[in-house]
Amino acid sequence: MVGVKELPLLDRTDAECCTPLALEPLPDADAHVLSERFAALGDPVRLRLVSLLANAEGGAVCVCDLTEPVGRSQGTVSHHLKVLSNAGLVVSEKRGRNMWYSIVPPALEALRAALVTR
Amino acid sequence: MVGVKELPLLDRTDAECCTPLALEPLPDADAHVLSERFAALGDPVRLRLVSLLANAEGGAVCVCDLTEPVGRSQGTVSHHLKVLSNAGLVVSEKRGRNMWYSIVPPALEALRAALVTR
Repeated sequence: MVGVKELPLLDRTDAECCTPLALEPLPDADAHVLSERFAALGDPVRLRLVSLLANAEGGAVCVCDLTEPVGRSQGTVSHHLKVLSNAGLVVSEKRGRNMWYSIVPPALEALRAALVTR
Repeated sequence: MVGVKELPLLDRTDAECCTPLALEPLPDADAHVLSERFAALGDPVRLRLVSLLANAEGGAVCVCDLTEPVGRSQGTVSHHLKVLSNAGLVVSEKRGRNMWYSIVPPALEALRAALVTR
């Protein structure tokens, strides 16, 4: 007969038995990535740019067509798009002399998922 | 016979005919309110607090039960909850000696709606 090997006890903490909360909080690593993305949306011009790109029929939009809808110069719009790009919310592509931007749908979906209530 | 009254021409701009974008951007007033809420979520501890409150079984949670899950002091947690409260994402209620916090579901839903892609 094969000997029964005793398994070590798990290192349980008191916190595991009595927490009144239904779930663990968002893991720390996820919270960092997601909070950086939320921070990037914490500006009305950037939020309007995301709204335009998320609803653009063709997917990508030339930076030159984004200035008028948000009422800002091309330099300002480019700066805001760079912040959104660094946060992983949009991607850019050079076409001729202009940059074209499009939304990253899974990045927005991850933010939506973090805002679901019970 | 009643005279036909000529209506004034609408003040149309060239922008209305040729924009390559499917929709107008988010209205400016909405963008301001929403971007303030997104900014409040731009911190990992606040995002974890929102995650805990949004998933709390009983709805409201005592601030004293939020410190351990996020690994911060009660003073720090209270500060972050105040920021979330000012942004309209959570509400508080005094019960005995402690403050209890709960999520404002429509506020989170409005943020989710701003992140929908085509």
